[in-house]
Amino acid sequence: MQNCKHSTVHEARVRSFREREMAKNLPVFSMKHLLVVSLALNVSLILRAMYEREKWSLYHALSLQQPRSSVINRCGSPEEAHVSTNKHLSISLPSLDMSTSIEAEDQDGGERIINLDHGDPTMYEKYWQQVGDKTTIVIPGWQSMSYFSDVNNICWFLEPELAKEVVRLHKVVGNAITENHHIVVGTGSTQLFQAALYALSTQDASEPISVVSAAPYYSSYPSITDCLKSQLYKWAGDAQRFDKDGPYIELVTSPNNPDGFVRRSVVNRSGGVLVHDLAYYWPQYTAISFPADHDLMLFTVSKSTGHAGMRIGWALVKDTEVAKKMTKFIELNTIGVSKDSQLRAAKVLKVVSDSCEPSNREIECFFEFSHQQMAMRWKQLRVAVKKSGLFSVPDFPPQFCTYLGRAFEPRPAFAWLKCEQDINDCESFLRSKKILTRSGKHFGFSPKYVRISIIDRDENFNLFTRRLSKIIS
Amino acid sequence: MQNCKHSTVHEARVRSFREREMAKNLPVFSMKHLLVVSLALNVSLILRAMYEREKWSLYHALSLQQPRSSVINRCGSPEEAHVSTNKHLSISLPSLDMSTSIEAEDQDGGERIINLDHGDPTMYEKYWQQVGDKTTIVIPGWQSMSYFSDVNNICWFLEPELAKEVVRLHKVVGNAITENHHIVVGTGSTQLFQAALYALSTQDASEPISVVSAAPYYSSYPSITDCLKSQLYKWAGDAQRFDKDGPYIELVTSPNNPDGFVRRSVVNRSGGVLVHDLAYYWPQYTAISFPADHDLMLFTVSKSTGHAGMRIGWALVKDTEVAKKMTKFIELNTIGVSKDSQLRAAKVLKVVSDSCEPSNREIECFFEFSHQQMAMRWKQLRVAVKKSGLFSVPDFPPQFCTYLGRAFEPRPAFAWLKCEQDINDCESFLRSKKILTRSGKHFGFSPKYVRISIIDRDENFNLFTRRLSKIIS
Repeated sequence: MQNCKHSTVHEARVRSFREREMAKNLPVFSMKHLLVVSLALNVSLILRAMYEREKWSLYHALSLQQPRSSVINRCGSPEEAHVSTNKHLSISLPSLDMSTSIEAEDQDGGERIINLDHGDPTMYEKYWQQVGDKTTIVIPGWQSMSYFSDVNNICWFLEPELAKEVVRLHKVVGNAITENHHIVVGTGSTQLFQAALYALSTQDASEPISVVSAAPYYSSYPSITDCLKSQLYKWAGDAQRFDKDGPYIELVTSPNNPDGFVRRSVVNRSGGVLVHDLAYYWPQYTAISFPADHDLMLFTVSKSTGHAGMRIGWALVKDTEVAKKMTKFIELNTIGVSKDSQLRAAKVLKVVSDSCEPSNREIECFFEFSHQQMAMRWKQLRVAVKKSGLFSVPDFPPQFCTYLGRAFEPRPAFAWLKCEQDINDCESFLRSKKILTRSGKHFGFSPKYVRISIIDRDENFNLFTRRLSKIIS
Repeated sequence: MQNCKHSTVHEARVRSFREREMAKNLPVFSMKHLLVVSLALNVSLILRAMYEREKWSLYHALSLQQPRSSVINRCGSPEEAHVSTNKHLSISLPSLDMSTSIEAEDQDGGERIINLDHGDPTMYEKYWQQVGDKTTIVIPGWQSMSYFSDVNNICWFLEPELAKEVVRLHKVVGNAITENHHIVVGTGSTQLFQAALYALSTQDASEPISVVSAAPYYSSYPSITDCLKSQLYKWAGDAQRFDKDGPYIELVTSPNNPDGFVRRSVVNRSGGVLVHDLAYYWPQYTAISFPADHDLMLFTVSKSTGHAGMRIGWALVKDTEVAKKMTKFIELNTIGVSKDSQLRAAKVLKVVSDSCEPSNREIECFFEFSHQQMAMRWKQLRVAVKKSGLFSVPDFPPQFCTYLGRAFEPRPAFAWLKCEQDINDCESFLRSKKILTRSGKHFGFSPKYVRISIIDRDENFNLFTRRLSKIIS
């Protein structure tokens, strides 16, 4: 671009110079000569104007392309990068006739390992590619250098912009009451879960408080709880079998990870406190029946918008002292939460809310897109399960969703798949088919079950359903 | 800008139109008329060229200002914003004659609370403002959505770009050996410190491993270590008084927080493992004597480049099993580390390395800038301490720095200030003067000492030295 500029300007200058020289060599300037000079100057100026317009367009084009290409390079292998680029150009829902996956499977020959062990929400990438630059964030080098975000807030490291967008999004969706709740931001809801355990336990208790959750429970709860062998709290297993006296913390995950069912607390004894993990209480996964108004609720961008790499979660906390203790935990644990990711999360949540405003005509409502996406995936999964005959997945009764204004069956982020007949270790069985899943035993349940992520990229999901459908008893 | 554009173009068009109309009304085009038209076209095109140049400059100016103003709004009060803006326009080192602070103190009347309790590294903001857009990062909405950064690395959530820049920066500065070390990234070095405790302790030990550090030690070590009453490790106080048999972890902070002295381990018994916290082992604070090559070293951007809000630290770890266990801890604690901040940190570290390349002529070397800044601040502090007569700060012998190629006295990020005479509670005494500091008692030391941050913004630091110099016995 610089060369181009120099060259054009240079040419114009040379022309201009030559014309001046020619004029000087003439004894007298005739009208004709002056006209020639003037016309030449016109030409040179018009050329310059054309160049300027071109430079301006080029600059804009480059500003848009630069970040996009850097993303694609970081997404994975060159093959994946290619796929991503194509997806960006033409975004379509996966076809139910499985032609895409047949093609993929044919190319792959059943040899490629399909890893659906983690709930990596890469399915959402294509929506955000479609949205384009609306969620792009620009952070200059001198921004967000201080530890502090809002010294007047109990949670002093919470970016006010994120707080505002969290409140707005819950209002738009109607899935949680934010009034009379403090917002505590965390490095993902995992950190907030630990902050909650710290806040709800007693420093000088004679023994650790019991932490329980009804099986099948989120597989990471036991390991996170007992990781440091804390004397403040201790994992006490399946809430349905919990019969110990004394205080306890019950974790209520609704919809539940791994099985997707809507849940309530099951222990119901005195001395208990509840932590509601509502990571999946969004319209793409389940019907929004009412705005949740619990004492302590956990949410995360990983599962709501798909931005797992940001590591941003938030807690809505009624009790001021609990909010203070949770903040203290995060202060001791990581001295706050990445400001860069908080600002980025704020922007993403804003675009989600904007996209679902009735007045919006520019982009598809995020929840309509992801809701349809999940509907298609579950339909595709059920076809594959039926075709195989070796597996089963839960059936869910339809429920009315106050947000979408219609009734539908839940479409969880995970399939809680059961191996039928005499397959007792479903994880090993699927591993022999090069499909990596997480065994039911990690969820305090039977190894006849596995948890399978439904929110991976199209290519992986299609390959998975195709391969599953071919496993025949 | 739009109005301006329309108006200029419109005027030029009107002129051009009028001239064409005039020409049409004449029965025949004379040479003179053509010349007039041509000259008018020249004028109109020159005006357009001038406008294009102006638009281009204005666009660049706005691109720079826009994020800046948003930063300033988030940094604090409108007064601070004003100061920040001025600082950006003319960046200068604080004047030793204290004229700035006299003015500030006069306006303030000694009533403003000066909070130097935390080591908030806002001093560095002005360098990064000076550098401008070189460290600006642009993150599109669909980037960094996955949990994973590099599945082939032990630390699977480490962004390869950050790893590359960490290695390069240590090579440029010569303060640490990265060869034969694994890099583990953390949400600040605070999280890595806990990851190290987890990795170096034994799950099935009969009692918690002792964690010690020579007093005065970093005030947060005891509270972080004992926060969850872990049965894996336990704070055991001053390393110099440690006489318990059995395994232990000794934390060696060098240069030390709070007092700035270079340190080595002091326990030297069998069964001990060392964690070297090298957060301040950078040329602005101390002479780089040798490239450190310890088993486990901790670094952070908060104190090296001043980006505390990013929450990014890294550990250099020799032992593969320790690196694996540290990674496991961070996986359980926060499922990885913000990708956004890792990418931003990579860019900042790159610019630091670039700025100090011998071939660089564009921007001042970051370490030259910050080294001079700290030299001026310590000079200013010593003048104030001497003028008051009520306080003392440590004297440091000059040491040769292999990086800067000259000898100098250390200039720590904190002043370890002692109240002389009969002032026994230095923190309370200074609080009565509206200066907030951290008492020596939190560092396992005498309350006659306080720790004071030397890396705050110019305005605060100047106000502080001015007020300190006026406290006379």
